[in-house]
Amino acid sequence: MNKLLIYQSDFGLVDGAVSAMEGVALKVDLDLTIRHLTHEITPYNIFEASYRLYQTVVYWPSETVFVSVVDPGVGTKRRSVVAKTKDDKYIVTPNNGTLTHLAANIGIVEIREIDKNLYRKETNFSHTFHGRDVYSYTGALLASGKIQYEEVGKKLDLDEILCLPLSEVEVSENLVRGNIDILDVRFGSLWTNITREDFLKLNVKYGEKLEVTIYNGDTLVYQNQIVYGKSFAEVMVGSPIVYINSVFKVGIAINQGSFAKAYNIGVGSAWVVELRKAK
Amino acid sequence: MNKLLIYQSDFGLVDGAVSAMEGVALKVDLDLTIRHLTHEITPYNIFEASYRLYQTVVYWPSETVFVSVVDPGVGTKRRSVVAKTKDDKYIVTPNNGTLTHLAANIGIVEIREIDKNLYRKETNFSHTFHGRDVYSYTGALLASGKIQYEEVGKKLDLDEILCLPLSEVEVSENLVRGNIDILDVRFGSLWTNITREDFLKLNVKYGEKLEVTIYNGDTLVYQNQIVYGKSFAEVMVGSPIVYINSVFKVGIAINQGSFAKAYNIGVGSAWVVELRKAK
Amino acid sequence: MNKLLIYQSDFGLVDGAVSAMEGVALKVDLDLTIRHLTHEITPYNIFEASYRLYQTVVYWPSETVFVSVVDPGVGTKRRSVVAKTKDDKYIVTPNNGTLTHLAANIGIVEIREIDKNLYRKETNFSHTFHGRDVYSYTGALLASGKIQYEEVGKKLDLDEILCLPLSEVEVSENLVRGNIDILDVRFGSLWTNITREDFLKLNVKYGEKLEVTIYNGDTLVYQNQIVYGKSFAEVMVGSPIVYINSVFKVGIAINQGSFAKAYNIGVGSAWVVELRKAK
Repeated sequence: MNKLLIYQSDFGLVDGAVSAMEGVALKVDLDLTIRHLTHEITPYNIFEASYRLYQTVVYWPSETVFVSVVDPGVGTKRRSVVAKTKDDKYIVTPNNGTLTHLAANIGIVEIREIDKNLYRKETNFSHTFHGRDVYSYTGALLASGKIQYEEVGKKLDLDEILCLPLSEVEVSENLVRGNIDILDVRFGSLWTNITREDFLKLNVKYGEKLEVTIYNGDTLVYQNQIVYGKSFAEVMVGSPIVYINSVFKVGIAINQGSFAKAYNIGVGSAWVVELRKAK
Repeated sequence: MNKLLIYQSDFGLVDGAVSAMEGVALKVDLDLTIRHLTHEITPYNIFEASYRLYQTVVYWPSETVFVSVVDPGVGTKRRSVVAKTKDDKYIVTPNNGTLTHLAANIGIVEIREIDKNLYRKETNFSHTFHGRDVYSYTGALLASGKIQYEEVGKKLDLDEILCLPLSEVEVSENLVRGNIDILDVRFGSLWTNITREDFLKLNVKYGEKLEVTIYNGDTLVYQNQIVYGKSFAEVMVGSPIVYINSVFKVGIAINQGSFAKAYNIGVGSAWVVELRKAK
Repeated sequence: MNKLLIYQSDFGLVDGAVSAMEGVALKVDLDLTIRHLTHEITPYNIFEASYRLYQTVVYWPSETVFVSVVDPGVGTKRRSVVAKTKDDKYIVTPNNGTLTHLAANIGIVEIREIDKNLYRKETNFSHTFHGRDVYSYTGALLASGKIQYEEVGKKLDLDEILCLPLSEVEVSENLVRGNIDILDVRFGSLWTNITREDFLKLNVKYGEKLEVTIYNGDTLVYQNQIVYGKSFAEVMVGSPIVYINSVFKVGIAINQGSFAKAYNIGVGSAWVVELRKAK
């Protein structure tokens, strides 16, 4: 193992929760390299946790261990697992949908349920903080090489991976219809589920215009023509742009502005985006 | 020493202050492992700094050095100290109350005042940023083993440790009365000062109900029956629960909601919680 | 090289962007020590990015590599460079003004344009995320010693460093006039561009009063007498103070309050501060 241990949660960084997880891990092995994906996942938002893993995991070295704790079901019978991805990363997480995007986009090759005998025993066990006493501890044992993946616990069937529903993209001759998966929060850009490959079927070239229509359920929220560009600065400051984002899907942004705030746009399967080649 | 150096402050992460502290430490020894507890302590809130140390320090390996800088008295005659805890951690901090919870719950076995000759001399000394020029620098010297604990400075009497007043918990036959120490900020749960041991004297079992009354001074803020459970998901989403939190004290939460926001509840000795076994 | 790699950006910590940058770097060399200056630079604010580097870089060891990505011009012809400072640090950044304060205060001794052949090739290249595919990757190659500085790309003339305009400080017999560069955000203190040396020409001693006048353009925003002190706690809680801040320039604060919020004060060259010795 490469000793890299990466954390994600919805705990925020305002109290001692993340530090307690780190301490537990470094008590297992002082040589672990601990890094953080984010701890600002919207509380209880499993879809977002799943997406952030998908956005990030691929850029890390093989054998990296990720601990993701967005766990509204802590203390219930939801299973605690370690998944192994096709590109040889390990994800320590409740089996509650957090593996959705990795399963759909990267592939999970094996999944094991964490054996209760592995849980941290040193002090009292918390029924509300499995991030510390189950996930961080197991992640540290695995990343440090103190246990092998096979020793995590019994193998589950791959179809036992709990996956959230993902919306489909529809492609017809002059139309691509998808939805808004998530925001590039800081900059207010919309990240759709439309891949570059599907988008290119519209046969639009850089500098040409698209007709962009956005619905929230049945309600029309936005309709206008937007230029397709490589990067934000190809349009004037304050102007909108359709582009391919850093996960190689269609994004919609305002150069140095926030598209999401400008038009009060949210995320999820109800937020539909239609792209047509403008005439 | 294990070379672990952990920082806490009320500086936030929006500017260069934390990074300047890190740089100063890594200039002392490139092999230090620097981690952060939190830098989001409410500005000037020494009680909170003290609590976050108490919540976290115990999970770290022996010999870990903590630097905690919540320092409204910077530049005055408040003393700069390094305390050694009973479980063999070192805390570098102004002696302004930051050691309160560690002294009360873990125990401080020795305390030394930082000798002014140890202060960083390389560049001009700042009268407003002792975090960089005193605490980080001293912490790095100690964590790296470049000085021994005995070389920090002269020993103080243990009763020179400045401690904030802590509220007592009252236990009678059918009533436990405590106060709200702090919030689990991100999730809005109330963390009381009532230990599990005191709580269990009420002889309440999982699934049974408690009568919970909350006062702000003389004002009644909340009164209702709440079920006692192991973990949040044992009640419906949106329902309240009394539970034992991850520091093994009584917490009060709303499953996937914020108890603190729902009822405008704050923290401190004026915020009193009464728990009675419901009839 | 010392293997230290420090990141700064306006990406925030709420999504996977920073983690993707880290992963790319650790794939280059697992032994890099990655630290963060801040990722909370106001979006697109190059001046702030430049200032935070100036505030911090000096405290780090020689050979440290900084990657700063505030890049509103991503995808345009703005150049990607690595600058070497007089004190032997390396700054990997778009040449868009981010080097302004280092050039003016520390000195840049050499600057090279990143050769496109160095860009990360492993996966598809993003036109919107050069932080990952250009800056982090180049920074990691350099910090790890896998390339020498000379191999970054062709040398540019030092006068090709793009610098933002910096306001001058005016000193006359009884008056020093400067502007507000930036805030100590968390505490709401004003940080001016007036150096200690210029300030001391007013011949004011600790405990004496200054007349402080603040304009926003032509509008008078604040005018009052404020005491000059070493540190905040020398005045009553809630009282204002003029002091020398941790970068050794004039700061204006309220002890345990926010001067900026109290008087709605902003930053930039239009925000002028006049200091006179009070009679």
